[in-house]
Amino acid sequence: MDDNSLIIILVEPQLGQNIGAVARVMLNFGLKRLRVVAPRDGWPNPEAVPTAAGADQVLDSAEIYSTLQDAISDLHRVFATTSRSPDLIKSIYSPNSAIEQLIESSQSAEKVGIIFGGERCGLMNEHISLSEAIIKIPTSDEFSSLNLAQAVALISYEWFLQANAHPSHIFRTGHTTIATHDDLENFFHHLEDELDRTGFLRHKKKRATMVRNIRGIFERACLTEQEVRTLRGIIRSLSKNPQKKPQKKAA
Amino acid sequence: MDDNSLIIILVEPQLGQNIGAVARVMLNFGLKRLRVVAPRDGWPNPEAVPTAAGADQVLDSAEIYSTLQDAISDLHRVFATTSRSPDLIKSIYSPNSAIEQLIESSQSAEKVGIIFGGERCGLMNEHISLSEAIIKIPTSDEFSSLNLAQAVALISYEWFLQANAHPSHIFRTGHTTIATHDDLENFFHHLEDELDRTGFLRHKKKRATMVRNIRGIFERACLTEQEVRTLRGIIRSLSKNPQKKPQKKAA
Repeated sequence: MDDNSLIIILVEPQLGQNIGAVARVMLNFGLKRLRVVAPRDGWPNPEAVPTAAGADQVLDSAEIYSTLQDAISDLHRVFATTSRSPDLIKSIYSPNSAIEQLIESSQSAEKVGIIFGGERCGLMNEHISLSEAIIKIPTSDEFSSLNLAQAVALISYEWFLQANAHPSHIFRTGHTTIATHDDLENFFHHLEDELDRTGFLRHKKKRATMVRNIRGIFERACLTEQEVRTLRGIIRSLSKNPQKKPQKKAA
Repeated sequence: MDDNSLIIILVEPQLGQNIGAVARVMLNFGLKRLRVVAPRDGWPNPEAVPTAAGADQVLDSAEIYSTLQDAISDLHRVFATTSRSPDLIKSIYSPNSAIEQLIESSQSAEKVGIIFGGERCGLMNEHISLSEAIIKIPTSDEFSSLNLAQAVALISYEWFLQANAHPSHIFRTGHTTIATHDDLENFFHHLEDELDRTGFLRHKKKRATMVRNIRGIFERACLTEQEVRTLRGIIRSLSKNPQKKPQKKAA
């Protein structure tokens, strides 16, 4: 994967700290190949180091070019990000669908890259025209100018999501085990016996609905065995004669 | 939409420039409601202004709180972002599926928020335990620490994508309302007072953990107002003197 993974290309970036932030977020999403075209403040740029926050390998292996043409000469597919709608005849893709295509290509051993413009005005038409298509990151119309590293973050994130299938929901149990339905059933009987005894469920007509609603609360919580034990302890504790002092532990 | 849109809550952020970057990217994706809990350098913080890059309306209307509990007291649903896997019994969602749920809630006029920890170590367990569930932004295992504003960017982007796509269907039935965190807090105090009285929480060393675990059960269930009333009725009922016969209704 690594060798064919997405190449991020920054065109004429201005601030070293943004380049560092780009390196950091690339590595957050497993991307390591950064190319920089004509960085305003030269290279290497010590201002990139703090914001890279340890992603030094991305900075150290960054490749520097003087023109975009040089930077993309060995690539098979290049998409350009912009928030504008340039007067060029290009397809415009969402990040999602652009990356779907680029991942397919990379899996066929094609080299793929995405270009990002500098902080002040993004990519010029002359840059965009070198690309195969445009990626437009959807933003609010009222305030559309994304920070450079944020734009790279969103693209890198989309790449990571698609390159790695991730489950959308994991139920975490810590180190305990989910209660069985038998455990739950015993807990419910315990609770309902106590509620019958104390008169909470005394309205015969409403009883079934009340029981169902109470059970619903706990069904939904997907209780662990330990939690069921805790809840039963709570019931036992609350049901004690409140006149008595709390019991002392045996010495 | 605006009034019910996602509330971003930063817990103990350190750098003003990150708060500014958060404000900028929120507005990029149409989000305007920022809450900040105990910012290290006080508020307002002039260092937030340059990185906000014009998103002054978000900074100016930011609400400052001294505790997370205060910051979420009026919210119905609160999810917590973390890259760790805390030893808490919470569901873990991807950004995508978490936001699907929160958008549905916001369309039912519920107030929803997502909390983000500070730069140094993210959210503590004590913060996460106040939330209903965890959002884990998938990242590379080797380099998982996201910049604060990047984490907010990804969440805001997901919100924007889903909020502006075809409206998702609303599956919550019934005419009940989700309890606010204030309702929950009052319920917890009621329960804990009774458990203190009956001696269930008598072990001082274990008390904090026990309280956290008990709260966790009910946080996770995303209780309705009616359910909170039912649970409080159950506590009252169980705490009655068990020697007495169940009370008869007045004729």
